[in-house]
Amino acid sequence: MLNKNYTVFIGCEADFDAAEIVLFGAPYDSTTSYRPGARFGCRAIRTESDGLETYSPYQDKDLGDRAICDCGDIELPFGDSAAALGLIEERAAAILQAGKIPFMLGGEHLVTYAAVRAAFAKYPGLNIIHFDAHTDLRNDYLGVQLSHACVMRRCWDLLGDGKIWQFGIRSGDKPEFAWAAAGHTHLQKFDFSGLDGVLQKLSGQPVYFTLDLDVLDPAYLPGTGTPEAGGVTFRELLDAALAVCQNADIVALDVNELAPNLDASGVSTAVAGKLVRELLLAI
Amino acid sequence: MLNKNYTVFIGCEADFDAAEIVLFGAPYDSTTSYRPGARFGCRAIRTESDGLETYSPYQDKDLGDRAICDCGDIELPFGDSAAALGLIEERAAAILQAGKIPFMLGGEHLVTYAAVRAAFAKYPGLNIIHFDAHTDLRNDYLGVQLSHACVMRRCWDLLGDGKIWQFGIRSGDKPEFAWAAAGHTHLQKFDFSGLDGVLQKLSGQPVYFTLDLDVLDPAYLPGTGTPEAGGVTFRELLDAALAVCQNADIVALDVNELAPNLDASGVSTAVAGKLVRELLLAI
Amino acid sequence: MLNKNYTVFIGCEADFDAAEIVLFGAPYDSTTSYRPGARFGCRAIRTESDGLETYSPYQDKDLGDRAICDCGDIELPFGDSAAALGLIEERAAAILQAGKIPFMLGGEHLVTYAAVRAAFAKYPGLNIIHFDAHTDLRNDYLGVQLSHACVMRRCWDLLGDGKIWQFGIRSGDKPEFAWAAAGHTHLQKFDFSGLDGVLQKLSGQPVYFTLDLDVLDPAYLPGTGTPEAGGVTFRELLDAALAVCQNADIVALDVNELAPNLDASGVSTAVAGKLVRELLLAI
Amino acid sequence: MLNKNYTVFIGCEADFDAAEIVLFGAPYDSTTSYRPGARFGCRAIRTESDGLETYSPYQDKDLGDRAICDCGDIELPFGDSAAALGLIEERAAAILQAGKIPFMLGGEHLVTYAAVRAAFAKYPGLNIIHFDAHTDLRNDYLGVQLSHACVMRRCWDLLGDGKIWQFGIRSGDKPEFAWAAAGHTHLQKFDFSGLDGVLQKLSGQPVYFTLDLDVLDPAYLPGTGTPEAGGVTFRELLDAALAVCQNADIVALDVNELAPNLDASGVSTAVAGKLVRELLLAI
Amino acid sequence: MLNKNYTVFIGCEADFDAAEIVLFGAPYDSTTSYRPGARFGCRAIRTESDGLETYSPYQDKDLGDRAICDCGDIELPFGDSAAALGLIEERAAAILQAGKIPFMLGGEHLVTYAAVRAAFAKYPGLNIIHFDAHTDLRNDYLGVQLSHACVMRRCWDLLGDGKIWQFGIRSGDKPEFAWAAAGHTHLQKFDFSGLDGVLQKLSGQPVYFTLDLDVLDPAYLPGTGTPEAGGVTFRELLDAALAVCQNADIVALDVNELAPNLDASGVSTAVAGKLVRELLLAI
Amino acid sequence: MLNKNYTVFIGCEADFDAAEIVLFGAPYDSTTSYRPGARFGCRAIRTESDGLETYSPYQDKDLGDRAICDCGDIELPFGDSAAALGLIEERAAAILQAGKIPFMLGGEHLVTYAAVRAAFAKYPGLNIIHFDAHTDLRNDYLGVQLSHACVMRRCWDLLGDGKIWQFGIRSGDKPEFAWAAAGHTHLQKFDFSGLDGVLQKLSGQPVYFTLDLDVLDPAYLPGTGTPEAGGVTFRELLDAALAVCQNADIVALDVNELAPNLDASGVSTAVAGKLVRELLLAI
Repeated sequence: MLNKNYTVFIGCEADFDAAEIVLFGAPYDSTTSYRPGARFGCRAIRTESDGLETYSPYQDKDLGDRAICDCGDIELPFGDSAAALGLIEERAAAILQAGKIPFMLGGEHLVTYAAVRAAFAKYPGLNIIHFDAHTDLRNDYLGVQLSHACVMRRCWDLLGDGKIWQFGIRSGDKPEFAWAAAGHTHLQKFDFSGLDGVLQKLSGQPVYFTLDLDVLDPAYLPGTGTPEAGGVTFRELLDAALAVCQNADIVALDVNELAPNLDASGVSTAVAGKLVRELLLAI
Repeated sequence: MLNKNYTVFIGCEADFDAAEIVLFGAPYDSTTSYRPGARFGCRAIRTESDGLETYSPYQDKDLGDRAICDCGDIELPFGDSAAALGLIEERAAAILQAGKIPFMLGGEHLVTYAAVRAAFAKYPGLNIIHFDAHTDLRNDYLGVQLSHACVMRRCWDLLGDGKIWQFGIRSGDKPEFAWAAAGHTHLQKFDFSGLDGVLQKLSGQPVYFTLDLDVLDPAYLPGTGTPEAGGVTFRELLDAALAVCQNADIVALDVNELAPNLDASGVSTAVAGKLVRELLLAI
Repeated sequence: MLNKNYTVFIGCEADFDAAEIVLFGAPYDSTTSYRPGARFGCRAIRTESDGLETYSPYQDKDLGDRAICDCGDIELPFGDSAAALGLIEERAAAILQAGKIPFMLGGEHLVTYAAVRAAFAKYPGLNIIHFDAHTDLRNDYLGVQLSHACVMRRCWDLLGDGKIWQFGIRSGDKPEFAWAAAGHTHLQKFDFSGLDGVLQKLSGQPVYFTLDLDVLDPAYLPGTGTPEAGGVTFRELLDAALAVCQNADIVALDVNELAPNLDASGVSTAVAGKLVRELLLAI
Repeated sequence: MLNKNYTVFIGCEADFDAAEIVLFGAPYDSTTSYRPGARFGCRAIRTESDGLETYSPYQDKDLGDRAICDCGDIELPFGDSAAALGLIEERAAAILQAGKIPFMLGGEHLVTYAAVRAAFAKYPGLNIIHFDAHTDLRNDYLGVQLSHACVMRRCWDLLGDGKIWQFGIRSGDKPEFAWAAAGHTHLQKFDFSGLDGVLQKLSGQPVYFTLDLDVLDPAYLPGTGTPEAGGVTFRELLDAALAVCQNADIVALDVNELAPNLDASGVSTAVAGKLVRELLLAI
Repeated sequence: MLNKNYTVFIGCEADFDAAEIVLFGAPYDSTTSYRPGARFGCRAIRTESDGLETYSPYQDKDLGDRAICDCGDIELPFGDSAAALGLIEERAAAILQAGKIPFMLGGEHLVTYAAVRAAFAKYPGLNIIHFDAHTDLRNDYLGVQLSHACVMRRCWDLLGDGKIWQFGIRSGDKPEFAWAAAGHTHLQKFDFSGLDGVLQKLSGQPVYFTLDLDVLDPAYLPGTGTPEAGGVTFRELLDAALAVCQNADIVALDVNELAPNLDASGVSTAVAGKLVRELLLAI
Repeated sequence: MLNKNYTVFIGCEADFDAAEIVLFGAPYDSTTSYRPGARFGCRAIRTESDGLETYSPYQDKDLGDRAICDCGDIELPFGDSAAALGLIEERAAAILQAGKIPFMLGGEHLVTYAAVRAAFAKYPGLNIIHFDAHTDLRNDYLGVQLSHACVMRRCWDLLGDGKIWQFGIRSGDKPEFAWAAAGHTHLQKFDFSGLDGVLQKLSGQPVYFTLDLDVLDPAYLPGTGTPEAGGVTFRELLDAALAVCQNADIVALDVNELAPNLDASGVSTAVAGKLVRELLLAI
């Protein structure tokens, strides 16, 4: 599984067999409807990770004390979503079958659907905790069902009502909000209110955690395809994400929608990389 | 009045006659003294508005339920401020005479003076609510009286003492602050303190609302000609702007000083567009 | 067919019925494998065309004297190439059926395949003159046959041996060059040598002209997905393209692969726009 | 006249009284109709001149052997062209009266009109050698006569027929080319053909040399407000400009239309600076 | 000491002899390990200071009422840290010997070591108040002891235990935090908690204040070499920095690590310039 | 010697022992005096090499048919030139001792001195063929002898008179040109005239080939620290470089001074990568 022609995320040099967590990249963004570039996200996070330390002063932990394997990016065929999702699902399933936690770096948000399929196959009672600016609940987008704008709807096709917990949502069309409110998903607008209660409720249940970086206010992360004003701060996100990782039974997770080409300052990539480090240490 | 060779703001496709609100652009920035580019603001807000939704989860309203006409940009002669202001005033006056609310997209802040002239001609008791980082109260700038740095002073020439209510101000020279404090304008430094009281006081009076986007901290809106550290957050601005639109008797308004060329990430344009949507829905 | 919510290319304001040539945009780039952004090409060419004059001092002709309709961009579903190509073919076919010349603005080069299908349906003896840095002759790319890297191969599937005339080619894999040399296409490496002879040979035959802007050296056009050093100059390209338009029996044409997001100076868009003007005047 | 709060062009540290040539900047661009930024040109040329050497291997001369004074930028009122031109004319006249050669760094091309007025007042038989991509011969632009698009027409108002020699021209509207061809100016399209003959003809006559940097192909100088494909190379321009400076009786000159904000690579500024050095050494 | 070929910071035009505070620049960044550009910081702060006012509405003070000399940048040899530090120390010592306060603009943080040497020579009981995202406490970095990553350790070599007060720290390796915690420095993670108590404790003692701009969250200052998510806001920093300047006995200070090339919007430079103005007024 | 945590140049995956040519990177730019960023050159060339093909239509050769090892970047201490050069020399010497050709990717030009030391130790009769815009013949730069501006002078210290053959030179100070002309080096200004004769003359002698990418006109390669107008075209450089590699007895070589951060379009990196491919195939 390991082609070694790539830069690994700082401190993630364990062999696959020895690892508890396995990082991999899914550099796909063919359905991005507004501004592409999420394909470059996973590579940028790795390449720029040498600007980070392995130590977290937030958690007083060090990546050097964890067994994490970074097995690089999957080579994906642009413009063929079904094929790309198949390859991603295969990778996630292999990691899960080996008893490890897959940690996927996107790519656009559609890639989550593939990893969720793999996780759901192993954990039929799967819940999803979803941080995002967007509902992602359309049934189709210009006729396409495999679209970043539909990814949570596709996951709902698998998981059914009441298993998807959305936070930070501040954009969508009117029918999407109505559809959620009809009991299909739990949708918290704008912030993380109620997260603690949800984490208690989900105690003991398998959780997939998907973090769309555009939940952040674009002041903190301008490098994303569809920036939405009015988001959370980095500290608010970090606190919420650590709460999820420390309290939920995470079986798989992803961080997606960094488009580093849209932020020439490099700050967005640095923010994403630090979040990845903190998640790796908190699981 | 309508030349149809342009992209309209999302959801603003009403005919002029059917519209309650009429959007138009005033792409002028010839007096900008520091970094030009506000001329590109109005077109960028429209062109990029397809990255927005028509629905607001803040207000639970949709642009599809409003009758708004976007009649495009006025063609303005660069370098001749008197002529440009004349053309803008003409457009605003025509909209007002038709019993509609003109909503102008700048351009630099000087363009406000033209729309205020039109509004003042119809509403002699006009007040101005002014959100800005800058006082804009100089009598002249390098000898020029028709300058973005003098726009509130020019409005005062028309309206007189006590009719201009300034919020968020954090930059100006010493005499400008002193001049304001002498009773010519109401000037609230740094934030929106006291806004609620002002809105009560102005109840029933005609109000022109002018929103210079640089009232935002440049973390939230880097794309503006003269960024000033220490501004308000997006959420603070949104709350204050909604309060104005929902409680004041707005007869005309504008949003100005977006310079999209200064923010390659596109975030500033996205922020401005969302504010325009919220204002359109709140009036 | 005409949605009027867009900016038209300068001087192209004829009604569809009155037009000899019909411009339209195909903003698709989902199969771009290296750096996306060609989706923004057609809109940028139009929007920035007000920086051009309608008059050409090269040809002493003016767009004001031609009847050209710009019918805007097709709305295309990202990530579903078959569906997107279907919509493009439909548009091109409608223009051809009306007895007009379709002039498509890409988008990535894959979109050419759709317009060629429409042209081939009407003109079974169709030839293609192809200016490009790349062979585009792969049978598939990572298993995908509908890919920008395969577009000339897909056209060959329709037209057969000896009907595709390639110029300026300077990149491809070894098998692609060998495949061309085996008699499938006429391939001129690096420049336009032999073009005059080809134009004589094709006299009286229907020709589709496809111009991939990356045939230019990236010094002249940095804003493209896969820049290839060693290309032709603007003057060399202009001379060759005018020769094609003035001497061949063009039945349809396209200009593609401008990625304006990759050239912040705006020069690439200005270059593309001028080429479009010259082609419109030369046909 | 000398305010010393600025960086001088490399090697131009002579006192005003001792100088043969006097550099000054005219940072005005209020009439720029397409993309502003020429206001930043003169300061960038100076500030970045420390990336140059004082020695020219082309001419085997060194700025250290010349007496050149750089007296900085004039402070100009944006948005008031008449006032700005008055201040520029005053500066140029003062330099001419002191028996020195004024070398103006723009700013937009309109500033040339002010310096030409000063030169014409001293030299009634003045000729202009004009390198440019654009005719600049409109009588007015959107009703404004003091516009960068009209600057050569304004100069013709002073000098009359047959005194303006234009080279490299490749853009304008049809009436402009016709007006030139009617005998008002000598207009050489695209290149410098015929320059040697012109220089012989002008021998002994006073010449103002105005160099609009957009005569260069935008491959060589992307940082300009209205880039025009199809221009000359740096070496062609350097040869032609040296021919002018070495053979004509230059009484005043300028270099204009660098917009450094439009070229983040800094190359355009480096190109402009090297041209300024070569002109300073060649006069 | 004064070379007058540079632009001074707005309102800082006093002669050296008359000045209380003396600004100077130390444009060095040769040891920057991640992204260089701090060398451009001091010049950018000065050059762009004309976008600021001399008046502070925060403090109701004006630079026009202070006697401040800006003596420009030192010319430093890149790649030779020992030599560069020697030149900086010399400059700082000369200012201190003249009874004035040196205010240094970096450059990378290593330059602080030179100014601290000069201050320590005059004030043996020197304390350092240090605002930063990074500990800067490594003993060496890849074997180099004169490195930006070691600057506080080098200062500790001089001052000894308990004299360095660090605030806002959120990045470092594990041994650095442990070393600080062992009593070598006072280290406050993440924010300015406890600053007031420290200022009381230091009353009457000489203080060097070093402000690494990356203590700000990168949303507020993206233009820095090693951006660290999770920092303080501009208002938090301004309040803390004013508290230091108004309550401590500042004998020398610096602001460092602005890399303006990394923030094309110019906002980072505007933020830094405003902080410099506020510090100048508050001392 | 091989740490495998990096992306290798396309097609260069041979083991060290099997390789004829060994690529390595020297990411150092601490002495760059104008605009840093060459440190990022070697990594960018590798990372972006997947935008290239392994096949060259210029030479009809393929990297797949060569045995080339890419052993990654050396970790170098910024700010300590002597130490960095020591590490580079060690790497180059190890490759030479193994009977292979070291191909170094800079980094700034100073790194050449280290590789030349290693080559000279093995080949005392070493000649250098040097393509560059700059003489690089200063004895010191602001007192520093280990500077990019002195690198050919340092090499001359080793090799002595008449062994360095410089082409394309168009910038330097007057004494440098005079020093060369005094017989110390062979210096061809502006272009490659005389290269064929030199190659004949050097037949059978060991040659180090150093290619400073700024020999290209900045139209072709804007991404370099000190761009110099008036350079050669890509095709001129390619022809000359192939002539060197095909006719000279190359014992070691390098390509340096790409600063990818200065060219956001990515074109400069693409140009550099293609040159590296061509050199690898031509040796």
